[in-house]
Amino acid sequence: MGAFHEQVRGPAVPTSGSRAVQRPLGVGEVVITGGPLGRRQEVNRAASIPLGLVQMERAGSLPNLRRAAGTEGGEFQGYRFQDSDLYKQLEAVAWEYGRAPAAEYEEFVDEAARVLAAAQRADGYLNSHYQVVRPDRIYAELEYSHEMYCAGHLFQAAVAAARVGVGEELVAVARRFADHLVEVFLRGGDDGIDGHAEVESALVELYRLTGEGSYLELAGKLIDNRGKGLIKDSGMGPLYAQDHLPVREADTPVGHAVRQLYLEAGIVDVYLETGDESLLECSVRRWEDMVATKTYLTGGVGSRHDGEAFGERYELPPDRAYNESCAAIACVHWNWRLLLATGEGRYADLIERVLHNALAASTSADGVRFFYVNPLQRRSDLAEDAYLGRRRDWFACACCPPNIMRTISSLGHYVATTGDRALVVHQYAPGVIRSGEFELSVATDFPWDGRVTFTVERAPEREWALRLRVPAWSAVTTVDGLPATPDGSGYVALERAWRPGDTVELGLDLTPRLVHPHRRIDAVRGSVALQRGPLVYCFEQADQDVDVEELALSPEAELRVLDKDDLPGVGRTVLIETDALAITQPGDGLPYLTTPVAPLATGTHVTATAVPYFQWDNRDGGAMRVWLPLA
Amino acid sequence: MGAFHEQVRGPAVPTSGSRAVQRPLGVGEVVITGGPLGRRQEVNRAASIPLGLVQMERAGSLPNLRRAAGTEGGEFQGYRFQDSDLYKQLEAVAWEYGRAPAAEYEEFVDEAARVLAAAQRADGYLNSHYQVVRPDRIYAELEYSHEMYCAGHLFQAAVAAARVGVGEELVAVARRFADHLVEVFLRGGDDGIDGHAEVESALVELYRLTGEGSYLELAGKLIDNRGKGLIKDSGMGPLYAQDHLPVREADTPVGHAVRQLYLEAGIVDVYLETGDESLLECSVRRWEDMVATKTYLTGGVGSRHDGEAFGERYELPPDRAYNESCAAIACVHWNWRLLLATGEGRYADLIERVLHNALAASTSADGVRFFYVNPLQRRSDLAEDAYLGRRRDWFACACCPPNIMRTISSLGHYVATTGDRALVVHQYAPGVIRSGEFELSVATDFPWDGRVTFTVERAPEREWALRLRVPAWSAVTTVDGLPATPDGSGYVALERAWRPGDTVELGLDLTPRLVHPHRRIDAVRGSVALQRGPLVYCFEQADQDVDVEELALSPEAELRVLDKDDLPGVGRTVLIETDALAITQPGDGLPYLTTPVAPLATGTHVTATAVPYFQWDNRDGGAMRVWLPLA
Repeated sequence: MGAFHEQVRGPAVPTSGSRAVQRPLGVGEVVITGGPLGRRQEVNRAASIPLGLVQMERAGSLPNLRRAAGTEGGEFQGYRFQDSDLYKQLEAVAWEYGRAPAAEYEEFVDEAARVLAAAQRADGYLNSHYQVVRPDRIYAELEYSHEMYCAGHLFQAAVAAARVGVGEELVAVARRFADHLVEVFLRGGDDGIDGHAEVESALVELYRLTGEGSYLELAGKLIDNRGKGLIKDSGMGPLYAQDHLPVREADTPVGHAVRQLYLEAGIVDVYLETGDESLLECSVRRWEDMVATKTYLTGGVGSRHDGEAFGERYELPPDRAYNESCAAIACVHWNWRLLLATGEGRYADLIERVLHNALAASTSADGVRFFYVNPLQRRSDLAEDAYLGRRRDWFACACCPPNIMRTISSLGHYVATTGDRALVVHQYAPGVIRSGEFELSVATDFPWDGRVTFTVERAPEREWALRLRVPAWSAVTTVDGLPATPDGSGYVALERAWRPGDTVELGLDLTPRLVHPHRRIDAVRGSVALQRGPLVYCFEQADQDVDVEELALSPEAELRVLDKDDLPGVGRTVLIETDALAITQPGDGLPYLTTPVAPLATGTHVTATAVPYFQWDNRDGGAMRVWLPLA
Repeated sequence: MGAFHEQVRGPAVPTSGSRAVQRPLGVGEVVITGGPLGRRQEVNRAASIPLGLVQMERAGSLPNLRRAAGTEGGEFQGYRFQDSDLYKQLEAVAWEYGRAPAAEYEEFVDEAARVLAAAQRADGYLNSHYQVVRPDRIYAELEYSHEMYCAGHLFQAAVAAARVGVGEELVAVARRFADHLVEVFLRGGDDGIDGHAEVESALVELYRLTGEGSYLELAGKLIDNRGKGLIKDSGMGPLYAQDHLPVREADTPVGHAVRQLYLEAGIVDVYLETGDESLLECSVRRWEDMVATKTYLTGGVGSRHDGEAFGERYELPPDRAYNESCAAIACVHWNWRLLLATGEGRYADLIERVLHNALAASTSADGVRFFYVNPLQRRSDLAEDAYLGRRRDWFACACCPPNIMRTISSLGHYVATTGDRALVVHQYAPGVIRSGEFELSVATDFPWDGRVTFTVERAPEREWALRLRVPAWSAVTTVDGLPATPDGSGYVALERAWRPGDTVELGLDLTPRLVHPHRRIDAVRGSVALQRGPLVYCFEQADQDVDVEELALSPEAELRVLDKDDLPGVGRTVLIETDALAITQPGDGLPYLTTPVAPLATGTHVTATAVPYFQWDNRDGGAMRVWLPLA
């Protein structure tokens, strides 16, 4: 570890010249020690990442690169974007190294960097698929080639590795590839754009790491190039890859969800560094439309299986919700940048919703099985369905598992920021938050319990503010037992000359509540869901005495909280129990009747039990529903 | 026209040895002269078929075959199943020739037969894709090759041509290919099956035409081969091609809908000829499950875009309903065979529902634009979506248009059958029905009017029965003004010694009615639809004063019928008008609220107007809904 590493260590985003109103903390400045987020990090390190490392060989990512280097034989394995799995895995390993150094992680990064350097062409180009299989088609089919997409993930892996001090060779490889992209697509005047946005944000990150302005410039150009018809139609139409309109003109997220969301992250990143307000404005406009009309209760987005895409406004079916795990991750990236750009708590609210629900559900309690698709309902028949079945240990198209791993390894990034003489806490988990002269310890059993106690461990002499987010779901919030009202941004500010040993207790309202859908959401009309704090609940067959498809709730039913130390298969949880009706309706002939349903249906009184959505599918693989009909 | 044609003319299905309890009429024995069905046949001949004939050259089907014959250059065009478009088009032309001979039709059949004969290999194999592009892969990738699927459509075209007396060369080509299939897959012991079922039914048809028992035997073997894992997984799982279970064990239709439905037609066809009751039983079991849990109000089936597939039970979203036009057609094939096998009116009821709704909507009023996908709801945003947009004049994958054309040309087949000394009328349309010594003329304005008048034109001396289907939707039915109750099969039987000039008037109840969904259909909970007679209605934006997405109905609202001689763009129709509420709900932030919706929503009284679903999308391309929320 020499000068190189000292030089590049620092905060994730952004650096000087930034328009950010809040600044991220540095690597290692947040430590999560417990709760579901901490538990997830433990399992990620103990089970998920070892599985991922095995797959880098088995699924072909490293062998493909050795083939490109000429040091291994055999046929190219997997998809044309197979390299990106390795890059995400490298990023996960790097952030894990930052959390707790381990020699095997450093060796993996070094070894991968050597393979990459050997595979990389002299001109900087690097993509095992195109080098091995179709060298004649390099940059010739950008609409689906994923060449820049893979480059972007390489850049992000290099930035992560550099920040934790293990990435010198990886950064060199990344820079050579970035320089090649600049040569071809910025200096060379080639107007191509990648069909899968991702490189835009990564280029800005590499600019932040290296100070090389051409990376930022290229990111801006690639964003400005959208909507010019540069992406040839590959059968999905121009919406698919967000090439239907210039980014400043589009009003709503469309097409392939992960592409749209990574693109938005890039758009806000370019705004953060250039101050181009028109970029922030258009992105916020689409965010507001997405949140109001295209977001699931779990924070999941991208409702369509067909094209892995955003649907129309209010098209939010619970059963066929696609909600790709990668879209949840990309959504966090975007919201994080909007939070830095504006300081508005609504973005942290959505991050919380995604982290505790849509994203959290993507991985099994034991960390070795993953969902690619995250529906809000699973019926009991046809569980063998390829996508709607249970979590799987890997996928032919394995974009999600290593993406989940890198996100879990870096959860600490999203906990807090610094503002003007302020430490701002966005997410609640037990642990430690440091920033320069300040150090806080956080004690809480959140989200099982609503009390969060902050203890000042170190503090400067002068006054500073502790700003604490008040989630929109908290009906009654207290600070040290007294009612507290958030400011317009959704935070309570406690401005004091803090002293070591000072404590403050935030009290959030975890009363379970029924949630009703907007009347335009056709797919869940006449239904309700349960939430407690940030957690969305669901009814799994495993917890019911009757067919979960027959359950119906009364809006007046009492909701009873049941603390469980260790529910078998699930672990620590809080269940919600309520009185319900089990209603059956005869079904003979077509399911359409000229008589209203109610007189035909008979109900019996039963108890229904709900489990947090993020803990579903850890038992028997039976039916599940987030939304239940009103009785 | 020589002995060959005399020999093969005859009923469509089935011939001697059949277990059919009813027998189809011969070509030309039913003439439809008006009403929506007659109008559709006119437009099909005047506009659709000419368009199809142009596409046979433009889209590559005929050029590909000339390439296989070595008489044309250039690259293979289109999909590997491109030949099948030509075969369906040939079948449409043949049935049209049967309706009214025209020299151009006979020339087209002869010319196509010459091209096919020239392309066909000496051993009988015929498939332009595999002959031109991948001769090394013939029969090597049956899971997705469509080789037998194409063969089946060739056989059906040949059967149709033979029945109308223009197909001698085409039958010879078909027989040579069928003999080759028998050689390889029956005698040769090869256990392959085609991933896309279709050839099974077609082989039985060719057996009926030729009497060649090996064709029937091969059909039976291909059916028995399902569920043995012979179809290699091509990424969609074993459900996709119905290879998950032996046909006698499967309880519900699954996977690619068109494949499942053509397979069922083949299963019933083999039962009809062999009397294997286990085949009929399993098919009826799946039919009952499909009808009760997987069929749309329009008769459409196959709810999923992903895999063009059946969903789970009660998975029937109106907006994302796939309802492929070809699935509607395949559903008619299956129901027709079940009707022949059992004589039960429930199958004719479903045929009526499909013919007047799901299938009828697939084509524009002017006959030159087609839907591949037939949803029950279209929202106003993103109308440019590749699939959910408006009808299109052709498709890269053009399986639907020629399939629609052959079905419309042969609509007369589904109108009536003969039973034991009985003429049985299943579908009502003005025209003529002949069967041996009997001839009836039918006068009606159905489905706009509920009166159907039958006049006996010719009759034998002895007693015979006129059996008339009473649709399940007709609440009060009369015969000559007196209440009539159908028998257990859904028919009223009028047994008399009929004399020329005798008339009988059937009165069906066309009172418009509200339809409620079964409570298990989550996607339309709390909503109602309108039907009148066999017609499902929908609310198009073009007819409303307010946003169609804001409309809500009261279950007590009066439904007023409005006769329209010529609604612009639509033509002759009957509208339904009703009082409704237009309800708006503010939408800011996430569309999930802890307050019930009703207090937040404000409504105004408006008039809502519905148009028959089959006539939708003939105006401005705006939003459409079959189901409206209850106010």
